[in-house]
Amino acid sequence: MSLRVGVDLGATKIQTLLVADDDSIVARKRGTTPVTGGPSAVLAAVKETIEHLLVRADQPASAVATIGIGAPGQIDVAAGIVLQAVNVAGWDQPVPVSEIVGDMFGVPVALANDVQASIVAEHRLGVGRGRANLLGIFCGTGVGGGLILNNDLWLGTGAAGEIGHTVIVQDGHRCGCGRNGCLEAYAGRGALEQAARQQHQAGRPTMLFELMEQQGRSRLTSRVWLDACLQRDELALELIAQAARAVGTAAGSATNLLDVDCVVIGGGLATRLGDRFLNDVRAAAQPVLLRSDVASQIVLSELGDDCGALGAALVAGDRLSQR
Amino acid sequence: MSLRVGVDLGATKIQTLLVADDDSIVARKRGTTPVTGGPSAVLAAVKETIEHLLVRADQPASAVATIGIGAPGQIDVAAGIVLQAVNVAGWDQPVPVSEIVGDMFGVPVALANDVQASIVAEHRLGVGRGRANLLGIFCGTGVGGGLILNNDLWLGTGAAGEIGHTVIVQDGHRCGCGRNGCLEAYAGRGALEQAARQQHQAGRPTMLFELMEQQGRSRLTSRVWLDACLQRDELALELIAQAARAVGTAAGSATNLLDVDCVVIGGGLATRLGDRFLNDVRAAAQPVLLRSDVASQIVLSELGDDCGALGAALVAGDRLSQR
Repeated sequence: MSLRVGVDLGATKIQTLLVADDDSIVARKRGTTPVTGGPSAVLAAVKETIEHLLVRADQPASAVATIGIGAPGQIDVAAGIVLQAVNVAGWDQPVPVSEIVGDMFGVPVALANDVQASIVAEHRLGVGRGRANLLGIFCGTGVGGGLILNNDLWLGTGAAGEIGHTVIVQDGHRCGCGRNGCLEAYAGRGALEQAARQQHQAGRPTMLFELMEQQGRSRLTSRVWLDACLQRDELALELIAQAARAVGTAAGSATNLLDVDCVVIGGGLATRLGDRFLNDVRAAAQPVLLRSDVASQIVLSELGDDCGALGAALVAGDRLSQR
Repeated sequence: MSLRVGVDLGATKIQTLLVADDDSIVARKRGTTPVTGGPSAVLAAVKETIEHLLVRADQPASAVATIGIGAPGQIDVAAGIVLQAVNVAGWDQPVPVSEIVGDMFGVPVALANDVQASIVAEHRLGVGRGRANLLGIFCGTGVGGGLILNNDLWLGTGAAGEIGHTVIVQDGHRCGCGRNGCLEAYAGRGALEQAARQQHQAGRPTMLFELMEQQGRSRLTSRVWLDACLQRDELALELIAQAARAVGTAAGSATNLLDVDCVVIGGGLATRLGDRFLNDVRAAAQPVLLRSDVASQIVLSELGDDCGALGAALVAGDRLSQR
């Protein structure tokens, strides 16, 4: 049996999976992304997480055929280099991820865009099975997107899928990317945290930051948002509703333009919040959609937290076996 | 020589072309779309315009092999029926256009969505020649869109391309379609006329309606808008700038999502206003685009007023020759 490792390298966590020949998941291990120390600290944490994964599965490193890494930001897929990942602390310069991780394990490594890997996984093994045309909207620290058209990943001239940076409010909120009115400025966890901090500092009561400290976090994770919503924290409910509305507006607009079979809503925030989030997204999309019967085609990711890492394993397996 | 007739059936005008085997244009004739009398009056005007076209080209009806009609609104292409065209007066019920016009001339007739026909024409014979992936944004009474992906018209599950009804301002202006914040509510001539009337009635000076009357029109045509802009009418300049900004925002967002090679800006308004409009569109798209070098890929339609009718002739020729 040859095993594939999949890594989803996020701004807050490192999710790793060991994947068998039949695409089943053999083991999982999650690590935390270091917020100091830059790329070398992050890649050391990747190494450690994969080592723990192999221990957990009771497998030697020699059983691993390929490693696939899904990463955010701008990526040179062919060269295996993350050019820039603004949401990951200290990754403002190019990092040759494939080479470094390849040397660590003596195994071929392929790099993929994290959300592109995610939509490939949903298409092949998740909620998008049997659908030819899919749009994925993944709400994490930022908002990423991926497109499958005619059963293939759609890249355009190379950079397609960026629904997080489509404008939903002309002259709207400032986005982390420096533009105005992007979906990400309303639905990315980074933007939501910034808005929560501002309102909290201005005197608005919220338990968000207490929960964060109780959970030993330095950021408002998806879990913190969920817990605050479950306890009916007003500010949390308001900002999450804003995020869902923004995602629904963008999903509706993109459906009017592309008329895909299915829009997959995923990422940490959507996965944690689940159906309550989905229902708000659908309710916001409904008045935008030209065809009134298609809001039900907006669905939650089926693979949840496994999505990115599984997709990275699949993409790497495909690409490296073609060599 | 077998000739094809192409008809662009718009809310304000009926543009007809006679097209030769080599896709060159043999003759043109333009008629006015009746605003009273409903479908029968409009189709009688189509008949008359085609008859004048044939007289102008000195050709008998028997020289015509096919007629293609591009129409706005919801269309059942296979059945040749316009289901609904809200921008054409009285077309709120299904009209079997192919059958009626076919009986008039004893020639096979094919119906196409007007903007889909337009982007096919630009792809095959216009500014999109040699580009595999194109988005067309056509500003007329409404704002239509068409997509070419991998050299084929992209229909999704059947209704793709509706960039006019993508949201550029969440909770924004009311659109003629009943939704809020659509591109069409900012850049369609119908919305622009409504805004101009409201401001004029509220006391704001403008020469728009004088020009309209001088030109014997009951609506603010693209020519009226152009003339008012040329005379530096403040309200006209302001509303046209709003329209161009809206188109640029939508063009930028769609490029971030699809990363097409080229965005073609067409339709009566863009064709009349030309480079001044294009430059405003590009300026508005620039701050939205993730790739800063691609604003120049937003270009004006090369076929202008011929675009829709030429595309209808091409699409009909293709489809009817396959029978």
